[in-house]
Amino acid sequence: MTTIKDVAKQANVSVATVSRVLNQKGYVSKQAERSVKNAIKSLNYKPNAVARSLYHKTSGIIGLFVPDISNPFFPELARAVEDAATSEGFTVVLCNTDSKQEKEEKYIQVLQQKYADGLIIATGTDSIEHILSTNIPVVALDRYISDHIPTVVSSNKAGAIDATEHLIAQGCQFIAHLRGPKGVTSADDRYTGFKQAIEDHSIAHVVVEAGFEIGQSEVATRNLFEKYPSIDGIFAGSDVTAAGAMRAAYQCKRAVPKDVKIIGFDGISLGEMLTPSLSTIQQPIYEMGQQAAKLLMMMIEKKELPSYWHEFSTTLKIRETSTGSE
Amino acid sequence: MTTIKDVAKQANVSVATVSRVLNQKGYVSKQAERSVKNAIKSLNYKPNAVARSLYHKTSGIIGLFVPDISNPFFPELARAVEDAATSEGFTVVLCNTDSKQEKEEKYIQVLQQKYADGLIIATGTDSIEHILSTNIPVVALDRYISDHIPTVVSSNKAGAIDATEHLIAQGCQFIAHLRGPKGVTSADDRYTGFKQAIEDHSIAHVVVEAGFEIGQSEVATRNLFEKYPSIDGIFAGSDVTAAGAMRAAYQCKRAVPKDVKIIGFDGISLGEMLTPSLSTIQQPIYEMGQQAAKLLMMMIEKKELPSYWHEFSTTLKIRETSTGSE
Repeated sequence: MTTIKDVAKQANVSVATVSRVLNQKGYVSKQAERSVKNAIKSLNYKPNAVARSLYHKTSGIIGLFVPDISNPFFPELARAVEDAATSEGFTVVLCNTDSKQEKEEKYIQVLQQKYADGLIIATGTDSIEHILSTNIPVVALDRYISDHIPTVVSSNKAGAIDATEHLIAQGCQFIAHLRGPKGVTSADDRYTGFKQAIEDHSIAHVVVEAGFEIGQSEVATRNLFEKYPSIDGIFAGSDVTAAGAMRAAYQCKRAVPKDVKIIGFDGISLGEMLTPSLSTIQQPIYEMGQQAAKLLMMMIEKKELPSYWHEFSTTLKIRETSTGSE
Repeated sequence: MTTIKDVAKQANVSVATVSRVLNQKGYVSKQAERSVKNAIKSLNYKPNAVARSLYHKTSGIIGLFVPDISNPFFPELARAVEDAATSEGFTVVLCNTDSKQEKEEKYIQVLQQKYADGLIIATGTDSIEHILSTNIPVVALDRYISDHIPTVVSSNKAGAIDATEHLIAQGCQFIAHLRGPKGVTSADDRYTGFKQAIEDHSIAHVVVEAGFEIGQSEVATRNLFEKYPSIDGIFAGSDVTAAGAMRAAYQCKRAVPKDVKIIGFDGISLGEMLTPSLSTIQQPIYEMGQQAAKLLMMMIEKKELPSYWHEFSTTLKIRETSTGSE
C-alpha cells in the first residue's frame, strides 16, 4: 500500500509538506503543491481515513437513530438517508434504539468517540436533554424535538383531514379512528386532523388507541366491530395499523371495501402488497430521508440553513380498500 | 474532557505507560497498571476511539452489505446483526449495494480506509474476486460465496420440500412454483427441493421465474391462471412473491384458500399482516443474523471457527392461505 512517505519521496518534498497539502492547512508553494498532487495521482495514494479523522476530528460517519429497522416504515427512510449520505462520501451507522433513552445515550457516546459528524434522529423518547447536549449537528426526522433542531416532517394534520374526508365522500356514516400512541407528535397531529374533519361534517365516530403495531390494532378493531356493528369506515393511524384492521374485518366476516372502507397513513410498500390493496395517505418518505441527510451535511459543512422547519405535503392515494363495491 | 495526560498525572506515571496499559502492549509493572486503571476509573476517562483505531488498525466498525434495506427480508436480518454487534461494542455501517459490484467495491474501499474490522455480505453479484481480495474478515449471510468464507444459510432445499408436500397433503393436484432469480443460491435450492417433492408424488406442475418482487410475481401469476385455470396450489419462492400471487388471485376472482392454496418462504412479519395470513416456511432470520455477527467477531478476535458452514433448519408455519375451506 502506498504511504505518505512514498508520496513525499516521489514529489521530492518532506512528509510535512504532503500533510499540509492533504489537510489544506499551512503554507505550501504552488510548485510543491503541484508535485504532491501529481505524485498522489501517479501512485494512486489514498490518504488513511483514520489518520485524517484524528487530525480533523471528523470521520465522515453519521448516525441514524430509528426505533427498530424491522418496523416497515423505517427501512424506506434509511435507504434514502444512506443514498444521500453515500453520494456525498459519508457512511451511515445504523442505530436501533427501541425509543429507549439509555440506548440513545450509549449510541451518542460511542459515536462521539468515533468523531461522528452528525446524527439523524427518527426516534421518540420523553426526555430530550441527552440530544440537546450533544456537541455535533442533529436533524429530527419524522418527529419534533426542539425549535433549535432542524425538523423534517410531513403534513400529518392535513393528511388526516384528507383521509377522513375521503371516507365521508365514499359514503361512510360511522367512522372509527385507530390512533397512534399518545405523545408521539405524528400520531397526535393525525388525531387532531381527524377530529377537525369529523366535526366539520357531524359524522358519528369513535377513537381508540391502537399503537403502531398490527397485533394491537387487530384486537382493537375486533372489539370495535363487536361494540359498534354499524362502523363502516376506518381511518388507521398508519399502514401497519390498517393491515391489522383488515385482518380483524376478515375474522369478523366483514368484506372490505363493501361492508367497511379502510384507509391508512404512510404510503409504505406494504400497502401495495395487501389484498385488497390499501388506500392511504402517502408521505414522500424517500424525499424526507434525503432532505434530512442534506440538511445534516449542510450543518456539518457549517452552511446556513434556509429554514429549521421542513414540512412535506402528503397525497391521497386511492386504492382498493376504500372504493368499489366488491 | 479527561485526556490521557490527566490519567498519567493522577496515576503518577508517564503518558507512554498509560498508553501501554490501554493498548496492552509492552512491559508495565503490576503496580503501575493498577494505578493507571484506578485513575481511569476515578476520572471516568474514555480513550479516544479514533486514536486507538490508528494505533491498532481496528475501528470497531463492521459493514453490513444488503441489496436494499427496503426489501422486507433484510431489515429483520439487519436488526439481528446490529443487536449482536452492539452488545460486543461494535457499530454497524449500513451498505445498500443493489447487488452491484461497483457499489460493493466502493464500500469495501471506504470501509478499509476507516479500518473496518469485517464485513457481513448478504448480497449477490456474479463476480466474487473483489470480496475474496479484501484483507479483512468476511462472513456470507443468506448466500454462498466460497468455501473459504464462513457461510450462514437456512436449509432452503428441505424447506421447499416441506412447502410442496404440505400443498400436496392439502389436496392440491396442480401446483405452480414461482421461483426466485436463477443463479441466486437460495432460489436455486428452493427450486431443487420443489422438483424433488413433486416428482416423488407425480403431481402436475409448472415453474415460472417471478423474481423476488411483488409486481413481477403478480403478473406471472395472472398469466398462469389464464393459461392453466386448474392450478390449485402455489409455492412462492418468497413471502413477497406470495403476496403478489395473492393479489393476482384476488384480481382473477379466485378465493384463497378455497380455490387456490398458497405458501411462501422466509417467515418475515409481512406474512402475518396479510389477509388471509400467509402460510410459509419460516427461516430463523434473527438467529441467522446473530450467528453471522458472532462468527465475524470470532474471526476479528482471531479465534478458530468450529465450522465454515452454518445451516439453520426451517419450519413449516401453517396459517390461513393453505388450510380451511373459506
